Amino acid sequence: MTGSINIALLGCGVVGSQVVRLLTEQADELAARVGAPLRLVGVAVRRPQRHPDVPADLLTTDAAELVSRDEVDVVVELVGGIEPVRGLLLTALKAGKSVVSANKALLAEDGAALAAAADESGADLYYEASVAGAIPLLRPIQQSLAGDRIVRVAGIVNGTTNFILSAMASSGANYTEALEEAGRLGYAEADPTADVDGYDAASKAAILASLAFHTRVTADDVYREGIRDVTAADIAAAKALGCTVKLLAICEQTNGSVSARVHPAMIPRSHPLASVSGAYNAVFIEAAAAGQLMFYGQGAGGPQTASAVLGDLVAASRNRVIGGRGPRDTAHAALPVLAMGDTHTRYHVALDVIDRAGVLAQVAGVFAEHGVSIATVRQEGRGHGNGAAGRDADDGAPGPKDATLVIVTHSASDAALAATVEALTGLDAVQGVAGVLRVEGLGRPVTELGGGS
Amino acid sequence: MTGSINIALLGCGVVGSQVVRLLTEQADELAARVGAPLRLVGVAVRRPQRHPDVPADLLTTDAAELVSRDEVDVVVELVGGIEPVRGLLLTALKAGKSVVSANKALLAEDGAALAAAADESGADLYYEASVAGAIPLLRPIQQSLAGDRIVRVAGIVNGTTNFILSAMASSGANYTEALEEAGRLGYAEADPTADVDGYDAASKAAILASLAFHTRVTADDVYREGIRDVTAADIAAAKALGCTVKLLAICEQTNGSVSARVHPAMIPRSHPLASVSGAYNAVFIEAAAAGQLMFYGQGAGGPQTASAVLGDLVAASRNRVIGGRGPRDTAHAALPVLAMGDTHTRYHVALDVIDRAGVLAQVAGVFAEHGVSIATVRQEGRGHGNGAAGRDADDGAPGPKDATLVIVTHSASDAALAATVEALTGLDAVQGVAGVLRVEGLGRPVTELGGGS
Repeated sequence: MTGSINIALLGCGVVGSQVVRLLTEQADELAARVGAPLRLVGVAVRRPQRHPDVPADLLTTDAAELVSRDEVDVVVELVGGIEPVRGLLLTALKAGKSVVSANKALLAEDGAALAAAADESGADLYYEASVAGAIPLLRPIQQSLAGDRIVRVAGIVNGTTNFILSAMASSGANYTEALEEAGRLGYAEADPTADVDGYDAASKAAILASLAFHTRVTADDVYREGIRDVTAADIAAAKALGCTVKLLAICEQTNGSVSARVHPAMIPRSHPLASVSGAYNAVFIEAAAAGQLMFYGQGAGGPQTASAVLGDLVAASRNRVIGGRGPRDTAHAALPVLAMGDTHTRYHVALDVIDRAGVLAQVAGVFAEHGVSIATVRQEGRGHGNGAAGRDADDGAPGPKDATLVIVTHSASDAALAATVEALTGLDAVQGVAGVLRVEGLGRPVTELGGGS
Repeated sequence: MTGSINIALLGCGVVGSQVVRLLTEQADELAARVGAPLRLVGVAVRRPQRHPDVPADLLTTDAAELVSRDEVDVVVELVGGIEPVRGLLLTALKAGKSVVSANKALLAEDGAALAAAADESGADLYYEASVAGAIPLLRPIQQSLAGDRIVRVAGIVNGTTNFILSAMASSGANYTEALEEAGRLGYAEADPTADVDGYDAASKAAILASLAFHTRVTADDVYREGIRDVTAADIAAAKALGCTVKLLAICEQTNGSVSARVHPAMIPRSHPLASVSGAYNAVFIEAAAAGQLMFYGQGAGGPQTASAVLGDLVAASRNRVIGGRGPRDTAHAALPVLAMGDTHTRYHVALDVIDRAGVLAQVAGVFAEHGVSIATVRQEGRGHGNGAAGRDADDGAPGPKDATLVIVTHSASDAALAATVEALTGLDAVQGVAGVLRVEGLGRPVTELGGGS
């Protein structure tokens, strides 16, 4: 057995403390798998007194000094944020030290610089824990599917928003109530912005799209819409269509371009992603040869994320022992990134209209003008409660004075769809837009949409 | 860019022809990912005239000569079976040639010899395609979870039997009818033995257990029971319990031992594996830190399996270009393998009994003698059709002369459960055992079992 692999840990919070625990508890097993013992040589934290579980002689507040030590083989970074971490990791990689990171924000913003530094020195850069916690996702995309053409990666990659939307769907609660519940149960942070506004999911989408399409995609390239504006009425409307509302990260490759977006969307209740509830994550991958694959598990949590970190740590350490290194990030395809307006989606639009002859013709005319084809229309009487009424509009009896038109479109450019909605608000007969949500079939036929269930 | 990576292909059937196609169609992309072009230098087949799509100068009937050529870097084996393939692959590995194989039977029987040969020469041995077709499974187990402790791997890994059981459940067909349908639709081979008797799944279980538990487990170590004896009545009985019947491969690590088994089992309809239908595969992995993970996709098919083969081929080729090699199979844990009798399971037992006072006490006595605890008992009148009747036994009205006792046990050793069933058949009041099936909760509480749906 060769000498030990020496590890510097940056950050020792919920995940880091689990990494320390597992490194100790599983020391023998890990050594057998790596071919050398893993030795923790330092833990950089802000306030050492808060870490009584870590041997005092390992604790330091000087991360830069720790990273620069000659003895360090692998730097495990669990601090998060852009600076000062970027500088620390670049220094480590340039010095030939391998890096294991769970830092989605940094990878999504400047993964290219880190990858270049790793390439130059021959060090490893692993970041499985940055997306979907415990779920093995990056390694399957980067290695298992390396001989295939991935056409779509779509999934639920943020547990906080999934918890909130699940709670809204099951209890009928509105967004604010569900957010409060999530906070009480520890599923939402005191400042939930990164989660509920989709920043977290957008970073993950950028990482997934980059690996899947061999193209650099940064968080800025990702269209982002959070869940703050999802109403109880939207959830009810989805239910009436046989759908459920999820915050999705969707990365697609079409006609030589790629797109990446994060937004709430209705998906058919029969789709496997629809039943992913609470804090779970699930990601669908569609590849030309492999077909559809799904990966499911816990997307966050201390031990769960630590599992992904340790998998990377074993890989990086093993490469040190037996030589060689992990796969490089390749951006050889360098495909253009589509703007959201050019991305093709489907819309669900609920319009409050005056119930008089000719209104539907007028509304349909606006869709036609914008080249948007309508898949289904349903007229609902109002005053029966939102979205729950319905069928009586079809029976020929005179309807109530006001009505809601529920329209699901076929696929069209997002710009055309947005312009259609904008134009509809200008019609006299339209009293208001009760709800607009994108609809995703995710590779499955959604012909049954509009039929209720 | 370095010289090409030269590939020898053994076997060119459903999967091999897709590998040839993808190597050609995706040549540029694959070269970019590997860092060198992949060049097919020979294809060994039995009857060259049957392969008009392969350039004639590549075809050969002499696999041994092809494998021994100096120019060959990687051997891709898609022939199947033990001999002569074992000898060919050992020769290749000993000569330092990397091997990519989809041969579950060989890996399950003699993976240790192949791994040792690879270790000795420093060549790579990859076999992602041997289990669950397109689904990335071995790489996640071996690499992503390398820092975790896997406690259970359980899933549906044979598409043919899953198709048959799905057909039986949805149409009420019996086994023979469903098998015929599977044959007509191309989901069952002319000789379905390997699938329906569980040999295929047992090989996969051996491979999964070996990797998950770092212990050599061969196909002979795996308890194996196929689906030939699953009756329409079993499926109906499962339905009445809120369950569905699946052929499961289950690998577990408990108290320092491992076990691997393949048998049909009832699982709760609420379990994600229950909704995996038709030819799909799905595998649950439970690890100490990561928690529960699920992987889902197509377990067979030409392009799907070729995707897994190409992923391995890219990895092996890349290792040749940049140096290094993939993870070794480690068997460092070397845990003992439990016999099936010592494995803990739960049973569903349906007994045809004479409906007279004291029968239940007698039956319960037999369970107690064997130390088996009963979870639920339900008595059903007979003559209403098997398993579909039911509830009227509870309403206090006098029951019919004969009855069926439906019993679900708590967990006990399989030997104790089998002995209990054996002893029950000796009771006067027991006219016959209408059905015995194992029940699996798969890590989820099955407290609702017995409550119907």
